[in-house]
Order: sequence, then C-alpha cells, then structure tokens
Amino acid sequence: MAGLEGLNVLPRYTGHQEEKLIAMSALQSILTPKAASGKPSPLPFFQTVQSYQRSFILKTGVELDVFTAIAKGSQTAAEIARACNASERGVRILCDCLTVMGHLTKEGDSYSLTQDSAVFLDSSSPAYMGRALSFLLDPEQVRQMQNLTQTVRDGHPADDPYSMKPDDRMWVEFARGMAPLMVPPAQRIAQLLRPALDGKPAPKVLDIAAGHGVFGVTVGETCHTAQIYALDWPKVLEVARETAVAHGVSSRYNLLPGSAFDVDWGSGYEAVLLPNFLHHFDEQTCTTLLKKANAALNPGGQVVILEFVPNDDRVSPPIPAMFSMTMLSSTPTGDAYTFPQFKEMCRKAGFSEPKLTQMEESPETVLIARKP
Amino acid sequence: MAGLEGLNVLPRYTGHQEEKLIAMSALQSILTPKAASGKPSPLPFFQTVQSYQRSFILKTGVELDVFTAIAKGSQTAAEIARACNASERGVRILCDCLTVMGHLTKEGDSYSLTQDSAVFLDSSSPAYMGRALSFLLDPEQVRQMQNLTQTVRDGHPADDPYSMKPDDRMWVEFARGMAPLMVPPAQRIAQLLRPALDGKPAPKVLDIAAGHGVFGVTVGETCHTAQIYALDWPKVLEVARETAVAHGVSSRYNLLPGSAFDVDWGSGYEAVLLPNFLHHFDEQTCTTLLKKANAALNPGGQVVILEFVPNDDRVSPPIPAMFSMTMLSSTPTGDAYTFPQFKEMCRKAGFSEPKLTQMEESPETVLIARKP
Repeated sequence: MAGLEGLNVLPRYTGHQEEKLIAMSALQSILTPKAASGKPSPLPFFQTVQSYQRSFILKTGVELDVFTAIAKGSQTAAEIARACNASERGVRILCDCLTVMGHLTKEGDSYSLTQDSAVFLDSSSPAYMGRALSFLLDPEQVRQMQNLTQTVRDGHPADDPYSMKPDDRMWVEFARGMAPLMVPPAQRIAQLLRPALDGKPAPKVLDIAAGHGVFGVTVGETCHTAQIYALDWPKVLEVARETAVAHGVSSRYNLLPGSAFDVDWGSGYEAVLLPNFLHHFDEQTCTTLLKKANAALNPGGQVVILEFVPNDDRVSPPIPAMFSMTMLSSTPTGDAYTFPQFKEMCRKAGFSEPKLTQMEESPETVLIARKP
Repeated sequence: MAGLEGLNVLPRYTGHQEEKLIAMSALQSILTPKAASGKPSPLPFFQTVQSYQRSFILKTGVELDVFTAIAKGSQTAAEIARACNASERGVRILCDCLTVMGHLTKEGDSYSLTQDSAVFLDSSSPAYMGRALSFLLDPEQVRQMQNLTQTVRDGHPADDPYSMKPDDRMWVEFARGMAPLMVPPAQRIAQLLRPALDGKPAPKVLDIAAGHGVFGVTVGETCHTAQIYALDWPKVLEVARETAVAHGVSSRYNLLPGSAFDVDWGSGYEAVLLPNFLHHFDEQTCTTLLKKANAALNPGGQVVILEFVPNDDRVSPPIPAMFSMTMLSSTPTGDAYTFPQFKEMCRKAGFSEPKLTQMEESPETVLIARKP
C-alpha cells in the first residue's frame, strides 16, 4: 500500500489501567485529523464523508427539544429520554454525538449545556435559533446538494431553483424559521442607521425582499418616526406584517407586494435595505438593483447590504467562503461576493465606497454606501 | 437580545490595505468556533447546520475526478474545469470549498493537492478511497439520517434497515466500494496472525461476512498455505471470489454461502475473522456469534474482531464515538462497543482477554482473543 508503509503500531492494550490511559490518549491525538506523525492519513477523508450526519444530529436534538430538557434539569440519558418522550438508547447515542460535536458536555453519565447551546438551542431562550433548521435543512435544500455533481458540471442547478419562484412555500418557511437568526444583525443595522434617521422628521426606509420583516421592523422600533416600506411576494409579506404587528410598528409599516424587479420602489427614502438579497444574482444584476436603490434614495441616503463576504482569497473565513456553495446549488447565478466586488458594484451604481461592519454575533457583514 | 448585549464592533473596513488585513484576521479568528471572546456565539450552530454540505462537496470532487486532474497538472479553476469537463464557475466554487475543508490548498488562483488527498483521492494512487463514497453516501444512508428524529424516538429505524436483508443491493455496493478502505487494516490483521499461522501446515481461516473478501484474501496472500473459508450472502460472495481470483488465492478460497446465523461454520480453524460485523447486533447476539466462533476454533485458535471502539466515556475519539450513530440509524440494535464491553463478551464466549491494536492508518481497532 503506497504511502502506508512503516506506520507505527500503538502500544497494545494490556488491561493495566495506566497503560490504557496512555494508549487511549495516543489514539485520541491520532484520530484528530490530521495525524500528528505527518504521514498520510485517511482520517480527514472519513471525517468529511461522515459530516452530513452532524447536521441531522443537531436537527434531531432540536426537534426532540433535548437542549430545553437539559436546561430544565434532566441530566442522564434516561432522564432526558423521559422528558423528551424518546427512547433511552436513542437519546444516549444522540447526546454522545452532540457532545463529540461540541454542543453538549458530558461528565460521567450526565450531560450539560455549553454556554452557546444554553443561549441558542434552549427553546425558552429569547435567542433560540432552532426554528431556522426547518428552512436550513429542508429536504429540498439537501436534495440540491445531493445533485451537486451535475450542478458543478453545468455551472447551475438542473431544475428551476426554488429561490426564484414567487410565493414558493420555501420562502414562507424561510421567513418564519430564519427570523431569530436575523435579530442580531438587524439590531446592528438599526444602530448603524439611527444617527442619520433620528435627524429627519419622518424618514422613509425601504426593506427589499423583507421576508420575515425583521430588518425593517427593527429599524422601525429603533427610529420611532421612521416609515417602513416592505417589498416582497404577497404570501411572504403576510409573515412580515405579522412581525410588524407583534412589534407595534404596524401603523408605520407599508406593504409593496410583488417582485423587486417589477414593482415600483417609489422614492424619497433615507435608507434602502438589501439584506441577504444580492447573493442570489450575478454581479450585473446586483449593479442594476443597486442603481434602482440609488434612484429611490434622497441625496445623502444610504443603501444597507447584509451579506456573507469572504476574504479576497475566497477560501476564508470558512462560513462566508462556503456560502458560495449554497448559492451555486440553489440559484442560477448567485455567489458570495468579496469586498472589492461590492466596491465595484457600488461605484457603478453611483454610490460612495461602502463601509464594512463585521459582527461577532453573525457570520455576515454589513456594508453601507452613501448616495452623494 | 439576552446574552448578546455588549458585543464589540470590529474595526471597520476603511479601504487601507493594512487596516483591512487586521480586520480580516480578526474576523478569521472569530469565525472559527468558538469565538475567542468567551461570549455566546451562534457560529458553532451555523457550522454544524451546514456541515452536510461537506460530504456532498467531497463526493462531487471525487465524482468529477478533480483530485486526479490536479495530480496530472491542472492548477487553475479554468484548467481543472477543462480536464474534468465541467463549468469553470462550478469548479471554482467547488475547489474553494475543498480548500476550506482542508482537502486542497490554494495559492493565488492555483489549487494543489494536500499530502492526504494525493494518496487517497487521486484515482491513479494505489491507496485511492474514492469508490467508498458510493456506499458511504448512498441516498439510502442519507435518507436514514434524515429520519433520525423518529429513530431516536423509537430507539431503532422505522422501516426494515437495509443492513439485515440478504442479497441487498447495498451490500454488493458496499463490497465493491469499501474494499480499498479495508486494505490497510486487512494488512495489519494478516501481520498479526502470521506468526501463529506460519507454524501450521494448512491452517484453516474463516472470514465471517466476507463482503469484498479483502480480509480473508489478504491473510491468504500473507500465509501461503492458509485455506480461507469465506461466508456471506451468495451475491456478495461473488465479489469476494473476484477478489480472491485477482489476488491469486482462488485455489485456497472456499465459499460458504448464506447467513452467518444459519450456515454451519465447520470446525478446525486456527483463526475466525469477524471484521466489521459485531457492530450490527446487540451484546447478547455478539456473544452468541463469539461462542459460535469459539466452537469452530482449534484450541489456541484466535478470533479477530475489527471494530470502531470508542473510549469508555463514549464521546472520544470522534470517529469511533460517532459510529454508534451510524448503527442507530441503520440497524435495529447495533452499536459501537467499548473495550470493557468486548472484554465481557469474549469472557462469556470462553475466550481469553482480547488484545487491542490501534492503527494510524484506520479509525478502527483490532481485537484478538485466544481460545484457551
């Protein structure tokens, strides 16, 4: 076997506790890709091949509400199983895997939440993100990745991607599920816009592809005189409207039903929000949309872009860099664009150079450009 | 937003190259779960949710033979796309993701193989493992994981798991695809058995659930007088027989077609191989199979078990620990057993305490126990 000659045998297990500890800790370090020896190792290959399981393991933990059960005091597999109405065998294996994956800790037979899972995965936490999984791991999304070979061959998905269909069930699912994930960047955007908006009497803010409505509604909550205009497909706007009502801004919430490409955006805005929208399109279409935003803004008005922005090398940081794959597999021409690409689009659309805000609370980046 | 107050804003991007480098490297460290600040971070959640993509990205890289194209000299996305007959856009995004995942490196616009991908993913390498993906990422395996919530609730998969059906298509797929992965542990097992077998005139070796035949055939290659008996379902044995012919041991290769639970194993063996078999069953059934092995062995004969053996904590090392999930989702009662569990099974079946051999070249462990 080429490249596999001369690999060392680890100390054999002899049954003596001390030697076992040494052998096991050596094994541990070896099974963490990549092998410390510098010799070729198939373990990174195994690790990647099996990584699809991790997504579904987390989804099951959320669907059975294991994290909430632990938050409420269940500790052992038997206790958690009782609380979640599931089998002990299943829960034991599930919680062990969630521990391997870093979403739980284990001490003896007792499981505990990590700091992150207590905040984001306990369904009684205000920052709970579990609902996003119904969109992020929708069988249709998974199916698109299972067809990836053909997609890479062609450069685009074979069938009509869901993302381009009006009133698609998926986008209502998206709107309902993704809202909690978008609260932190929405709050950041509202803070960034506040100084400009607070100086105006009844500033108009346009929220393109409003979806769950979180971006426009949060701006409306923060700037008490702002008039929010939400544009999206009619069925999705129903969800946005629910959000506006729930947050007490419905009297300042105006609906523009239809496609962002067809509907008249109006004019006189102080801000146009383009959150998670441009990545669905090619650069030329993005520029066209930015020109439309420019035309709708007052002089001095701001366009706000929220996007996954990889570094110029396009292979870091991991989450923004890999977001281009989500776009390859689910849109005809979408992508994750780098900062120089956004700079060029903004320039062509008549904006100043965008300012970039990175966040600890989100893998996305805010870009704000001003109409001179 | 509880727990999200007071997160720091990173330095803004100003367009000056030096500041950009600082900002980007700060971002990089932040997007590596978990955030260095010790504040709650949703990034480990995002990372896990999207990890299913990694499996399919690797599968696509293998199916398009991207690694082989790079090994043969293609470097840029355009060159690799030409060599693989795929779109440049698709290949660029694919190779960027493979770089993020650690299976390629990138320098400017040029991609290179890592040491591991050169050995295991270039289809002209003798250690090529790509064929295993057709089994490991078979849509049926993925579907089982998509049904995980119900499986954890019930403690077993809802429908008849493929693994228990004779002559199932999946096991022929398994036999053909997994053979290359099993060569390194098979060579290790043959080396471990050699001293005992070489001392006997025509030692009989029984390979239970022979599958691809790699284990028995490798023992036959190493010990030139050994008579190999291969037991498996008839359709699968055809694959094992092909392996025996290809490796020139067919004259010493004997077929025992049928289920390991029904067929007479015979007697007078110096070694019985149980590679990757016990994990399909509960402990009691494993003990029954080990008793059958004991009865078939000569005194002093050895049973050879190859398994994923997690540490006693059942949450390390990652690959063996998470193998229990593969068994939960695809068998009625299977599991990944710890060393104390194997020790107890061997004791009950009349064997000495098993000796453990860990390998750098495989995430599995060899356990050998002797009949007194």
